[in-house]
Amino acid sequence: MNMMTGKMRDERVTLAHGGGGKAMRDLIEGVFTSAFVPDAMEDQARLMDAALQEPGARLAFTTDSFVVDPVEFPGGDIGKIAVCGTVNDLAVGGARPLWLSAAFIIEEGTEVALLKRIVMSMKQEADKAGVRIVTGDTKVVGRGMADKVFVTTSGVGVIAPGCDLSAGRVRVGDVAIVNGVLGDHGAAILAARGDMALSAEIQSDCQGLGHLMQAVMHAAPGVRAARDATRGGVASVLNEVAETAGVSIEIEETALPLRSEVKGMCEILGLDPLYLANEGTLVVFVPEDEADAALAAMRAMPEGREATVIGRVVDGMAGRVTMRTLFGGARIVDMLVGEQLPRIC
Amino acid sequence: MNMMTGKMRDERVTLAHGGGGKAMRDLIEGVFTSAFVPDAMEDQARLMDAALQEPGARLAFTTDSFVVDPVEFPGGDIGKIAVCGTVNDLAVGGARPLWLSAAFIIEEGTEVALLKRIVMSMKQEADKAGVRIVTGDTKVVGRGMADKVFVTTSGVGVIAPGCDLSAGRVRVGDVAIVNGVLGDHGAAILAARGDMALSAEIQSDCQGLGHLMQAVMHAAPGVRAARDATRGGVASVLNEVAETAGVSIEIEETALPLRSEVKGMCEILGLDPLYLANEGTLVVFVPEDEADAALAAMRAMPEGREATVIGRVVDGMAGRVTMRTLFGGARIVDMLVGEQLPRIC
Repeated sequence: MNMMTGKMRDERVTLAHGGGGKAMRDLIEGVFTSAFVPDAMEDQARLMDAALQEPGARLAFTTDSFVVDPVEFPGGDIGKIAVCGTVNDLAVGGARPLWLSAAFIIEEGTEVALLKRIVMSMKQEADKAGVRIVTGDTKVVGRGMADKVFVTTSGVGVIAPGCDLSAGRVRVGDVAIVNGVLGDHGAAILAARGDMALSAEIQSDCQGLGHLMQAVMHAAPGVRAARDATRGGVASVLNEVAETAGVSIEIEETALPLRSEVKGMCEILGLDPLYLANEGTLVVFVPEDEADAALAAMRAMPEGREATVIGRVVDGMAGRVTMRTLFGGARIVDMLVGEQLPRIC
Repeated sequence: MNMMTGKMRDERVTLAHGGGGKAMRDLIEGVFTSAFVPDAMEDQARLMDAALQEPGARLAFTTDSFVVDPVEFPGGDIGKIAVCGTVNDLAVGGARPLWLSAAFIIEEGTEVALLKRIVMSMKQEADKAGVRIVTGDTKVVGRGMADKVFVTTSGVGVIAPGCDLSAGRVRVGDVAIVNGVLGDHGAAILAARGDMALSAEIQSDCQGLGHLMQAVMHAAPGVRAARDATRGGVASVLNEVAETAGVSIEIEETALPLRSEVKGMCEILGLDPLYLANEGTLVVFVPEDEADAALAAMRAMPEGREATVIGRVVDGMAGRVTMRTLFGGARIVDMLVGEQLPRIC
């Protein structure tokens, strides 16, 4: 295996690597299964977890394709984002993430070394999150038929009996908390593309939030709902929750945690940080009397060190989100129309 | 919803449809969730099946990306193949397929009507197979960054207590059975691409094999292992099983079920039907004394009407597959080297 890995260092993926024969097996063994699944196995993973067999437990199942451009950026790469994104989709629904699948669509000519870096960063994030990547697939398409590599991860987790986070449970009086600064991922990708000649060294916030969500649910057992604020940013999350729960949400501009570099970039480019994508930032809705406990639990963890209340659920028009501005006025925070940044994740 | 569906008929996908805002929600509601998940739901599916909670039951988890070119072909499309492929990956491992995820990477400019056809064919196949598509994702990439649409499906199934199909259990004396003619999918795709000026009207064999596998396991409870013969064809399956089990396999050229059109195409183009891809064809290994029961069970179903014994497991060099030819000779059937047909699935 080591010899082959060495041999592959300068190689590029060819169509033969997708053909189902020896070349494909070499690629899969040299790059993928050596990192994910050390032992020979059936095509399908066969698994069980005691928590899934508890009466009242439910299985959570989620999927996302990742097409982020560039595939490597400050603070992460497409592999890290794929693992974190799926872990977070499970986590914000109250599930403990258990197992991930990973499917790769690879453009002919892609460097094998790039694939290896992506795979290693997936393994690292999976280890951190306490999940295993248990099954996978690779396909190769001709030059110009994909852009380097696309990754699709699916995740299976377990929701403990009695746990039922959902936007429909959000009530007037609830408090909206975020775990950290907003917009770092969107800003980092924008800077990494280089077409803006931005020199800011902003890192993506890309991180898994499984442990943080478990801590929140423990500290604030009445937690209503949580959402990771990816494409469409915090504004889209707030709009979706307000609509589903049939409530209004009011946020405070002065309360929004923003890195000064991100704020500056948004001012120069006319972007609104509320719509910038995040990959390690969630909004959690908790009853008012559990807000302090939730905040304390979040701030005790690296992923939540800058946790803060950004707003409240109020009586009002269903689906309406408003922001009280710096100057004491109020403006409507609508859902994103059109597209802000293509291929952000 | 109906009005929007009408409005979308002549539309094409734009980058805004991937941006996380209103356009994306319209596309998802108009095309995807209206077919898959009629009700509003959380991003993650929350599920349970009594069979999963039986002591000794195991969960099966599998994934595949599909990049077949062209996306529509005689006998199927990329959606049908995605559902069948994942159902079959679960089925050949002995699992009863339960739930599927579906993630779409869509090229800007793709017709919404094409997406709708793909989604409808996914729904149809899922219904036939008795599985539900419970969660999904869409991403849009710019023109020339993908080829129309790529689909990644993952599947979760349940393996009944005591069921343990695996290649390692194959023994000398076992019989290898296929459920139908070989190579139809590969031949259909080749013809559909049009670059060979082949007029043959060959349909892909694309079909779900979940019900067939359940019938085989019922009729032949000693069944050792099964594999769907996709990329790399039957030859790759036989090689993999022979290697894993540490046995030799001997097949009979005269026993191989082939449609005359496929045979003819292979002769003209110098292709070997043993390496042609199938999307609804499996090889099942059963103990000799259960072969008749397995055959009878398969032939009683439309998916297995042409089921036949193609070979036997024999004592010999581990991993060696040989074919006794028409003329009484023998040749080695090696694993595919290089690539036969790119983007076959």
